[in-house]
Amino acid sequence: MNAPLSPTKVGFIGLGQMGKPMALRLVQEGTDLWVTSKIQNAYPALRAQGATAVETPAELANAQIIFLSLPGVAVIRDVLFGPEGLAQRLRPGTIVVDTSTVEHGATLEFHQRLSQLGIDFLDAPVSGMQSRAEAGTLTIMCGGERRVFDAVHPWLERMGNNVLFMGPAGSGQLTKLVNQLLFDIHCAALAEILPMSRRMGLDPAQVASVINSGTGRSYASEFFLPRILERNFGDGYPLQAAYKDLVSAAELGARHCVPMPVLAAATATYQMSLLAGHGAKDKGAMVAFYEDLLNVTFQADTGANHG
Amino acid sequence: MNAPLSPTKVGFIGLGQMGKPMALRLVQEGTDLWVTSKIQNAYPALRAQGATAVETPAELANAQIIFLSLPGVAVIRDVLFGPEGLAQRLRPGTIVVDTSTVEHGATLEFHQRLSQLGIDFLDAPVSGMQSRAEAGTLTIMCGGERRVFDAVHPWLERMGNNVLFMGPAGSGQLTKLVNQLLFDIHCAALAEILPMSRRMGLDPAQVASVINSGTGRSYASEFFLPRILERNFGDGYPLQAAYKDLVSAAELGARHCVPMPVLAAATATYQMSLLAGHGAKDKGAMVAFYEDLLNVTFQADTGANHG
Amino acid sequence: MNAPLSPTKVGFIGLGQMGKPMALRLVQEGTDLWVTSKIQNAYPALRAQGATAVETPAELANAQIIFLSLPGVAVIRDVLFGPEGLAQRLRPGTIVVDTSTVEHGATLEFHQRLSQLGIDFLDAPVSGMQSRAEAGTLTIMCGGERRVFDAVHPWLERMGNNVLFMGPAGSGQLTKLVNQLLFDIHCAALAEILPMSRRMGLDPAQVASVINSGTGRSYASEFFLPRILERNFGDGYPLQAAYKDLVSAAELGARHCVPMPVLAAATATYQMSLLAGHGAKDKGAMVAFYEDLLNVTFQADTGANHG
Amino acid sequence: MNAPLSPTKVGFIGLGQMGKPMALRLVQEGTDLWVTSKIQNAYPALRAQGATAVETPAELANAQIIFLSLPGVAVIRDVLFGPEGLAQRLRPGTIVVDTSTVEHGATLEFHQRLSQLGIDFLDAPVSGMQSRAEAGTLTIMCGGERRVFDAVHPWLERMGNNVLFMGPAGSGQLTKLVNQLLFDIHCAALAEILPMSRRMGLDPAQVASVINSGTGRSYASEFFLPRILERNFGDGYPLQAAYKDLVSAAELGARHCVPMPVLAAATATYQMSLLAGHGAKDKGAMVAFYEDLLNVTFQADTGANHG
Ligand SMILES: NC(=O)C1=CN([C@@H]2O[C@H](COP(=O)(O)OP(=O)(O)OC[C@H]3O[C@@H](n4cnc5c(N)ncnc54)[C@H](OP(=O)(O)O)[C@@H]3O)[C@@H](O)[C@H]2O)C=CC1
Ligand SMILES: NC(=O)C1=CN([C@@H]2O[C@H](COP(=O)(O)OP(=O)(O)OC[C@H]3O[C@@H](n4cnc5c(N)ncnc54)[C@H](OP(=O)(O)O)[C@@H]3O)[C@@H](O)[C@H]2O)C=CC1
Ligand SMILES: NC(=O)C1=CN([C@@H]2O[C@H](COP(=O)(O)OP(=O)(O)OC[C@H]3O[C@@H](n4cnc5c(N)ncnc54)[C@H](OP(=O)(O)O)[C@@H]3O)[C@@H](O)[C@H]2O)C=CC1
Repeated sequence: MNAPLSPTKVGFIGLGQMGKPMALRLVQEGTDLWVTSKIQNAYPALRAQGATAVETPAELANAQIIFLSLPGVAVIRDVLFGPEGLAQRLRPGTIVVDTSTVEHGATLEFHQRLSQLGIDFLDAPVSGMQSRAEAGTLTIMCGGERRVFDAVHPWLERMGNNVLFMGPAGSGQLTKLVNQLLFDIHCAALAEILPMSRRMGLDPAQVASVINSGTGRSYASEFFLPRILERNFGDGYPLQAAYKDLVSAAELGARHCVPMPVLAAATATYQMSLLAGHGAKDKGAMVAFYEDLLNVTFQADTGANHG
Repeated sequence: MNAPLSPTKVGFIGLGQMGKPMALRLVQEGTDLWVTSKIQNAYPALRAQGATAVETPAELANAQIIFLSLPGVAVIRDVLFGPEGLAQRLRPGTIVVDTSTVEHGATLEFHQRLSQLGIDFLDAPVSGMQSRAEAGTLTIMCGGERRVFDAVHPWLERMGNNVLFMGPAGSGQLTKLVNQLLFDIHCAALAEILPMSRRMGLDPAQVASVINSGTGRSYASEFFLPRILERNFGDGYPLQAAYKDLVSAAELGARHCVPMPVLAAATATYQMSLLAGHGAKDKGAMVAFYEDLLNVTFQADTGANHG
Repeated sequence: MNAPLSPTKVGFIGLGQMGKPMALRLVQEGTDLWVTSKIQNAYPALRAQGATAVETPAELANAQIIFLSLPGVAVIRDVLFGPEGLAQRLRPGTIVVDTSTVEHGATLEFHQRLSQLGIDFLDAPVSGMQSRAEAGTLTIMCGGERRVFDAVHPWLERMGNNVLFMGPAGSGQLTKLVNQLLFDIHCAALAEILPMSRRMGLDPAQVASVINSGTGRSYASEFFLPRILERNFGDGYPLQAAYKDLVSAAELGARHCVPMPVLAAATATYQMSLLAGHGAKDKGAMVAFYEDLLNVTFQADTGANHG
Repeated sequence: MNAPLSPTKVGFIGLGQMGKPMALRLVQEGTDLWVTSKIQNAYPALRAQGATAVETPAELANAQIIFLSLPGVAVIRDVLFGPEGLAQRLRPGTIVVDTSTVEHGATLEFHQRLSQLGIDFLDAPVSGMQSRAEAGTLTIMCGGERRVFDAVHPWLERMGNNVLFMGPAGSGQLTKLVNQLLFDIHCAALAEILPMSRRMGLDPAQVASVINSGTGRSYASEFFLPRILERNFGDGYPLQAAYKDLVSAAELGARHCVPMPVLAAATATYQMSLLAGHGAKDKGAMVAFYEDLLNVTFQADTGANHG
């Protein structure tokens, strides 16, 4: 059981797929929560639980803590530093907690610009899909000052059950990135190896079963292999939305002079899949790029579909 | 329970780490087993169970089925086609079952050369380490003629509990290869991503726990992450022994015009690790190549070891 | 012969290896040139030709055109937008011409920030080493508005004999980048192919002569092969200084979703060479990274040096 | 002028694009030349110069030297070791000179199998197209025993003006390969960089001129850039015919544990281009693979063709 919360005014911006259930958790657990939204279809549910909905981010300016759950760098930059930006309205000492997944370089920029205004920032991306947000069992990876992490910890542990302090500014995003990059490489590996096996005449269902019972298995293979066999490319996060992780890694590797050649090759597969029109599908769909090249389909063998 | 075996003389060549327990399983399950070995220290155990040990492979020439469990192409080529080679001594109709892991191209050559002599061949590489060989619970992936597979199936199911017919000549090796390639890519991915995370200041133990509880996890990460943190590079199969899988894949990809760029990048990491002197260590040791480049060590943080 | 110049006050900041000879050309050709410098050892030569030297960039604020020749983004950002930054002092309508080589993304940022202040910007990186700067025969690749290009063209043609308008903001940097990336790939290709040939037993001098008389030749091979054979790694631009091109390309490829897998592999070679300590040497020194791995040296065969 | 030839019976097999002009040079320079051909349309020209045409390779069995100029490994293996194979008919001491371009591994096999029969073999691939074969100005790169090279040198110098002894068996093929690999990498680099430049808005003709006057230039860029701008993909050697070089390199790199990551990335581009249907076009056509992905065309700007 979590310790009781101190009476703190908390704001939340971005009530989307993740933000809405996260905000609901906060308010259900007794937070004095103030929300604002562009789309606003999350208001009724949140109000019903006791949240206060306001018209504009500006009205959150006197909150002590503000959570963000926004799609990406451009929106966050606009919300914080745009013409109507929140940053210039916040009092020194306010804490902004960004639970969005954003590029490492951009997060460092946010830390620096807010710090110049005396505002504390924590990068705190989450993992776990919507269902774990609803259950309050997200993994939350935090980067920034320890002091800031400690201050917001009571609220973080209402949203996640694995709340980690990873180190200085950017460390939260970086930790999440490390996990994502491995996942992305695993998906790109499947994309080239599975169609090859098909081209060489193997039976897809048997190959899938050998992999998932063998040393070649991964979360990626367990999640995607059954779906690829059934040609279902809609259950995972879409390629185009997750692409920002690869942008983040490419910039980080380049700027910090860290060679990551396997990732670089996987990134090219990812990009080719986007360019070939698979962006709205999930990462399993990278296999389709190679299937088209090799003129095969990695699906349950019907005795007739071998290219 | 398996059906009783017909009275068949069965030979077994190669009584090593895998061959010895596999042969033991056969003889314990009632096989009329004849063995031969260069090193011969497996003889007492096998004889105790009822196997007959002979001096030379030539004395196995009148067996109806011969199993091989040998280190690689060169030895197999010598045993079958060398000056004292078995192939010319076998009667047409004999079945040779190769449970060794060998290059796809070489297995096709064995199939073809034996077939010209009227001898049946099955490529039947296994997966599972020594412990699963002892338990008779190997996965056995077979390529060749269905008729040949059916004929030897009673003996295969004494050694493995997942005995798969994968298709024509080479399909067994290919199936095992597919699994290994994914595993190798996962290891090479860890090799570049983990030291990067350390270089950027993250704590190795926390990174490991995020990966193994996240979407980035794989059999490779579950097996190697704890060992890398403890600097234990001796529990897995050595890099230099497993390298033949990558040779096999490189040849296959080149000859059949199948692009595998992620694998190619992983192969370079593998090769660089071999050239840097890590060949006797397991695949987790590829991380050391990148650690040296980046001047970091991915081990439990002692507060002092950060390069 | 160039047309006479209108009476225009022109500033020049950055009198280094390239900037000094470029500024000299301008003043020799009749420009009313005002210069400023941190290091100032170029003043005597420039004053002797009629240039006016001032203490600080701020004193150039009323120039109509200002040229920059600075080492990289950080310095330029400081000169333009730092605490003592020039940008806020310039009058609307002033033209800033940046002849430095900088990242594509940063150049777009400069264009945008200056444009908000009503200042015109032209990215105008040059190619040709110091000698061509002295001769006034640089290639100058320009990006920005056509109108701005036309306005500064009379001065550009005093410094270069191949002055190109390439398109909108960033196009100058991009054009130079395209050339550099090919050069970098050619160097990375030599780095892996030459030591391989040596490892396989070929004679370096003969290999070099076959390449430079064959279809494998390039500017890179013509420049570096003789120097590599003589172990001279000091004639070209140092790896660490040129690395910014690869950062620029990595960012551009990631942000614009353009797969460049050959470049990505070459970039890893470049980074490994930097990490292995070759940063102060020229691009020919990437060969040393592979020589060390393969334990060979690609130098004239003395009959004894074959690893 | 070359020294007079000793009275030696010389055979020539493979009177194709390269073989015919090479054979013509030999006979014009006084060789006692015996030729045989499957297609035979080279007979009149050769007979007119004094060559003797025979029905089958078997009739060349008593020649002292036999030259081959054949398309690839399969044909050579058939001509030498097939059912009607020449090898078993040749007397010990005969010299076979293979001027074809073949995989390094296969050439080593030919050396070994002929040597077991007491026959000397020289791998002697040539570079220079048909025109240089006609002029007798080929580059000929030889591998084998020095003694054998010396014995056939008088005939080699009738066909080439740059006749090189490169070292032991395979060294000739390897030397040619080194040159080809650089050329192939340069072509693959153009394939990804040029469409990128177009996608970013640059003018193709200007980009081409910057490259060919800059440090990014190569034989590949000089040959292909004008042709790519004109969409002419028919002047060079077709992708599918030259692909054997990449197979050779992939096998060599894998077997000898030599990492070549840039080549590996270029090989994937090459393979994707073959799979996408460009095999009958020359290496310039790899650009089309990326053009299709990026939806641009790298051709002279007409003001309307920008994708
Ligand atoms: N979805 C998932 O499974 C996971 C997502 N993430 C990360 O969490 C973050 C949020 O993801 P998710 O909820 O899926 O994203 P959504 O696409 O659902 O968008 C989140 C919210 O951002 C707000 N928003 C969008 N555009 C604008 C804009 N132009 N101006 C102001 N506000 C805007 C909207 O809030 P409102 O409706 O209130 O206006 C929107 O609902 C992302 O960074 C994502 O990468 C992390 C783990 C899992
Ligand atoms: N060198 C070459 O062969 C080529 C270089 N280039 C590009 O041209 C540009 C200039 O190159 P190059 O001349 O070699 O560079 P240098 O390293 O010689 O430096 C350029 C000048 O920048 C000024 N400078 C350096 N640091 C600072 C600082 N902190 N604050 C203010 N000014 C500073 C100095 O000017 P001062 O002495 O006046 O104080 C210095 O001399 C670079 O962008 C480079 O990439 C392009 C083609 C070829
Ligand atoms: N073309 C070029 O620009 C260059 C080619 N090369 C290399 O030189 C070699 C020859 O090339 P090129 O002349 O273009 O090749 P071609 O395709 O013209 O063929 C060469 C000859 O091989 C013979 N041949 C083909 N198939 C068979 C067969 N099944 N059995 C017996 N003989 C056969 C034919 O000889 P016949 O007509 O006498 O029956 C044919 O004319 C190749 O290895 C090539 O890679 C090297 C440098 C440049």
